[in-house]
Amino acid sequence: MSDEEIPDIVIRRLPLYARELGAVASEGSEYISSEGLGERLGVSPAQIRKDLNYFGSFGTRGRGYQVTSLRERIRSILKLNGRVREMVLVGVGQLGRALLGYRGFLIGGFEVVRVFDADPEQIGQAVVGYEVEDVASLPEFLRRSKVAFAIVAVPTEAASTVIDTLVAGGVQAILSYAPISRSVPDGVRLRQIDPVMELESMSYYLDDQFDAVVEDQI
Amino acid sequence: MSDEEIPDIVIRRLPLYARELGAVASEGSEYISSEGLGERLGVSPAQIRKDLNYFGSFGTRGRGYQVTSLRERIRSILKLNGRVREMVLVGVGQLGRALLGYRGFLIGGFEVVRVFDADPEQIGQAVVGYEVEDVASLPEFLRRSKVAFAIVAVPTEAASTVIDTLVAGGVQAILSYAPISRSVPDGVRLRQIDPVMELESMSYYLDDQFDAVVEDQI
Repeated sequence: MSDEEIPDIVIRRLPLYARELGAVASEGSEYISSEGLGERLGVSPAQIRKDLNYFGSFGTRGRGYQVTSLRERIRSILKLNGRVREMVLVGVGQLGRALLGYRGFLIGGFEVVRVFDADPEQIGQAVVGYEVEDVASLPEFLRRSKVAFAIVAVPTEAASTVIDTLVAGGVQAILSYAPISRSVPDGVRLRQIDPVMELESMSYYLDDQFDAVVEDQI
Repeated sequence: MSDEEIPDIVIRRLPLYARELGAVASEGSEYISSEGLGERLGVSPAQIRKDLNYFGSFGTRGRGYQVTSLRERIRSILKLNGRVREMVLVGVGQLGRALLGYRGFLIGGFEVVRVFDADPEQIGQAVVGYEVEDVASLPEFLRRSKVAFAIVAVPTEAASTVIDTLVAGGVQAILSYAPISRSVPDGVRLRQIDPVMELESMSYYLDDQFDAVVEDQI
């Protein structure tokens, strides 16, 4: 089955499975059923089985999935096994600094290798062990180095230009914290982290008790 | 059509449509076609039409959608019109502070009303205009006040307890920055912001040039 036939929504669930399998393994379990995994994740067991079926046959009837090997297999499908993925970070404001301090990246196999900003007061400063470089030197850096990943943590009004620079420099996977849409060429993925959109979609499900204005209760 | 029949994935795209329609409106356009909107968002026009069809008939043949009214209609479907949604924030570390400084929440109609932390050195301090309260007082606050939304920005090891406290206090929509899965009861939504999982799923799509180890080039 070619890559094209696997829906993106399936690919996006794989990291969730891998992470939860890691948690299961750390609790000392060797096997888990699709039912058990589904319950932990709030996903139906049928969904898990269907997702994994895109990539082959896993699990043993009656025993379920071998936790560590399924996790390794998924990370291999995601091209994450046995390597550290290098990233550039653009923007070292408060958010960028919080991201630099986040251990989850390295645990997941991602490492920020360079840090860029446009603010003359930031450039040359040491931030969480990185020397902040002028974003004007980003194209030159990307020309010399093959970096697949970038995180964009710049103000909204600067984000489009930064994304375009990253795309021109051959970056293929961009994670943006700016709430803007931007078309990128085929072969490049742009994902947004937008807490407001998450909140907005959850609002739909609120029950009626929250329909009244409640300001006076606070 | 009852709520149950509308897939969550459709609900999750509505904020994206609303936000882009806001951008279109600010550029001065009164109408936009599903093709035009789809191109801006990298979504197929058929998808947009199908999503909106769940909620009624919008748009005029030949003219497309009236931008402002469709945006207002979508925000109304999301129960976001004419109100500010109140939130509590738990955790005022570097990430929590970055979130408190993010203007996007208020622009989207969400306002942090109270801020909690477990760190004795933070409690009582003023942070971005809020006085940090002891997380031990969170259950009492939630008993007195009807707050639907919460943001969890605490360390991973504290997140499960905080989420359980919020659920017990009647919070129905929780946005968590901790990379853990947690079962929540029906009627409660828990969404995670996990940049690592976004990166991991994008890794799948990288082309072969990134398969080599490139450490020596950096």
